Amino acid sequence: MRQSQLFGRTTKNKQPDATSANHDLLTRGGFIDQLMAGVYSYLPLGLRVLNHVAGIVREEMSAIGAQEVLLPALHPKKNWEQTGRYDNVDILFKLESQTQSEYVLGMSHEEVIVPLAKRFIASYRDLPGAWYQIQTKFRDELRAKAGLLRGREFLMKDLYSFHATSDDLKEYYARVREAYLKIFEKCGLDAIVTEASGGSFTDEFSHEFQVATPNGEDIIFTCSSCDFAQNKEVSKVKAGDACPKCGKKIKELKTIEVGNIFDLKTKFSKDFDLTFTDEAGNKKDVIIGCYGIGVSRLMGSIVEVHNDERGIVWPESVAPFKVHLLTFSDDAAVAAQSKEVYDSLTSAGIGTLWDERNTVSNGEKLADADLIGIPHRMIISKKTEGMIEYKKRKESKTQKITNKEALSIIH
Amino acid sequence: MRQSQLFGRTTKNKQPDATSANHDLLTRGGFIDQLMAGVYSYLPLGLRVLNHVAGIVREEMSAIGAQEVLLPALHPKKNWEQTGRYDNVDILFKLESQTQSEYVLGMSHEEVIVPLAKRFIASYRDLPGAWYQIQTKFRDELRAKAGLLRGREFLMKDLYSFHATSDDLKEYYARVREAYLKIFEKCGLDAIVTEASGGSFTDEFSHEFQVATPNGEDIIFTCSSCDFAQNKEVSKVKAGDACPKCGKKIKELKTIEVGNIFDLKTKFSKDFDLTFTDEAGNKKDVIIGCYGIGVSRLMGSIVEVHNDERGIVWPESVAPFKVHLLTFSDDAAVAAQSKEVYDSLTSAGIGTLWDERNTVSNGEKLADADLIGIPHRMIISKKTEGMIEYKKRKESKTQKITNKEALSIIH
Repeated sequence: MRQSQLFGRTTKNKQPDATSANHDLLTRGGFIDQLMAGVYSYLPLGLRVLNHVAGIVREEMSAIGAQEVLLPALHPKKNWEQTGRYDNVDILFKLESQTQSEYVLGMSHEEVIVPLAKRFIASYRDLPGAWYQIQTKFRDELRAKAGLLRGREFLMKDLYSFHATSDDLKEYYARVREAYLKIFEKCGLDAIVTEASGGSFTDEFSHEFQVATPNGEDIIFTCSSCDFAQNKEVSKVKAGDACPKCGKKIKELKTIEVGNIFDLKTKFSKDFDLTFTDEAGNKKDVIIGCYGIGVSRLMGSIVEVHNDERGIVWPESVAPFKVHLLTFSDDAAVAAQSKEVYDSLTSAGIGTLWDERNTVSNGEKLADADLIGIPHRMIISKKTEGMIEYKKRKESKTQKITNKEALSIIH
Repeated sequence: MRQSQLFGRTTKNKQPDATSANHDLLTRGGFIDQLMAGVYSYLPLGLRVLNHVAGIVREEMSAIGAQEVLLPALHPKKNWEQTGRYDNVDILFKLESQTQSEYVLGMSHEEVIVPLAKRFIASYRDLPGAWYQIQTKFRDELRAKAGLLRGREFLMKDLYSFHATSDDLKEYYARVREAYLKIFEKCGLDAIVTEASGGSFTDEFSHEFQVATPNGEDIIFTCSSCDFAQNKEVSKVKAGDACPKCGKKIKELKTIEVGNIFDLKTKFSKDFDLTFTDEAGNKKDVIIGCYGIGVSRLMGSIVEVHNDERGIVWPESVAPFKVHLLTFSDDAAVAAQSKEVYDSLTSAGIGTLWDERNTVSNGEKLADADLIGIPHRMIISKKTEGMIEYKKRKESKTQKITNKEALSIIH
């Protein structure tokens, strides 16, 4: 993509109303635009990142045998009354049609997937099943803030799994946990599996995936040595205590929750009478697990973790482009060499943003490249004398490479 | 994909509340599920088709240089007041937040993209631009019916283009028109470019893309010989008249509108004060075009056109899978051959649905294959003696092929 054509543009100035790095950097880099508090437009650069994050999620969902569906955002009021959540959830958006029908905007999809599953589950032979969607969700947050971390409208992956026995759910739950760790690792995040409240209908813990960052809204207590970690909301330990598991010292961390997994047990099956007949002919409630990842929040979290004073430092897996090619002169030979490198990179399928703008200084091009944060930077100028100056965004060392090496250096 | 694992199942019975072929066949085939009037869930088969249709749209948008963005569904009320559409559009969903903010659910996105464009357009050098999105839209329809043809929640592609001059818009408008014809052709539809009302702010025509089908909700008058076509709503001719263009006979057709293109002129630029400075230094209003395709409606329209008494007959370009492989016996040799063919097709990247269910009769498998409508059917049974019985969904002729030919026969 030629940068002169790109919709969206960088801005130098700190965003005055940005309370977090992701809001500030994603706005200044031309990735997103705030329409109003908690509601964002994705510009081409931002949508590319969002799609890459969603792609990683899809890959790992598919690897654990989950099938993708797409459920509606408009839900009938009665389904939410049936689960008792219509009057008890204050962040639920409610609306009425001119036909007097009353709706809810989906902030979660148990109220849709469970009645849907009922159409297809009757016998133990129909179990287990695992279905997920990546869908826009709506939450009427009192305070929508922190950029993509807490929005009124956001992109969410939810997976629901349906089982005949608790043991079967436990086994799948463990597989999802591993899949989640893979997803966060691929996104360049070191997630801590943290015990948290299982909600109002169980005494057991659920598990959250927490990423440490100074701007995190959550607080967790985690062991300095073993894998013990609990959300402050449920924890009985505090910083400095001995770990209940290994005796080593507990520390306190500020974190962002990037995912969570729940054993819903039979709560929603009971609400919608979702039963199955087991091998012995007995009617039983289906056991349900639910597993969420905020896809847009994950994009924001990546920026919270991967940035420096000059801008974003995207992990390769989610970067909007692999290569940022900068042309520093309108000299004919430099232009021709740039075009040749751009063409060879793009025809090799290597996503490349080419800054061929002639309205912008070299200094501004460098600053933009740092702000946008594409992993591989290549500069062609008179000074590079037919070669390319190559640098990784996350390193300071530069090296001279040939046009041919430009291809082989990118994996 | 193994059919025994597939989420969603066929049902034999005609859907009692289905008023159209697409609603009936897509529901019975296990593609979609109606949550309430005008609101559908997409099961895995249906989502695959929807994604293929969206993929075709993206390909042609990209070919005319349009860049993809993603705009929110929640809009601030004030933007809709600014265009005068807040009180004048009765199908607008309105809602209020607990923070007293008032929102609109997007049924169209001029109110978002024009203020967004204002951030990036200042000079003639910033023009032209063409940005599109594929986004869920909401319309508070009085009567939501006809399956995916008229929904309260639906998937829509809208493209907006921004120009310095009317001539520049005209040129792009013509390119979009050609791109649209390509999209519909790739989807197996023969679209008629039809003159229609340009809306309340212009006397000129807009253009609709209409597809003839007996269940169409629109009526157009079209020439039996030349390309003259007008929507009944604006037409001064009637069936049997002489064509105003070539004198041949006018006929009346029932049609579905699958796309439309509008010259919005400066209506929305004026509302949001979107101006640019031309080469001479004069401030001028930006000229805007808008171009819509209902992606989910397009999926429904394909079914309206491509079906027979036994089910859907998907065009290859959008079919959920290329091959439907049916195994007709649990004989070990037949099972082994089936597995081998399935593996070789899938590892060649040929999407294959394998009906390996042992709970279903051969007759039911055949009926399901016809209902689901995958283009290439391959049967392996004892009777095929190590070969494969091959048939296209749209033809009645069968032929025997080898395992090897199964690969080469699919393009």
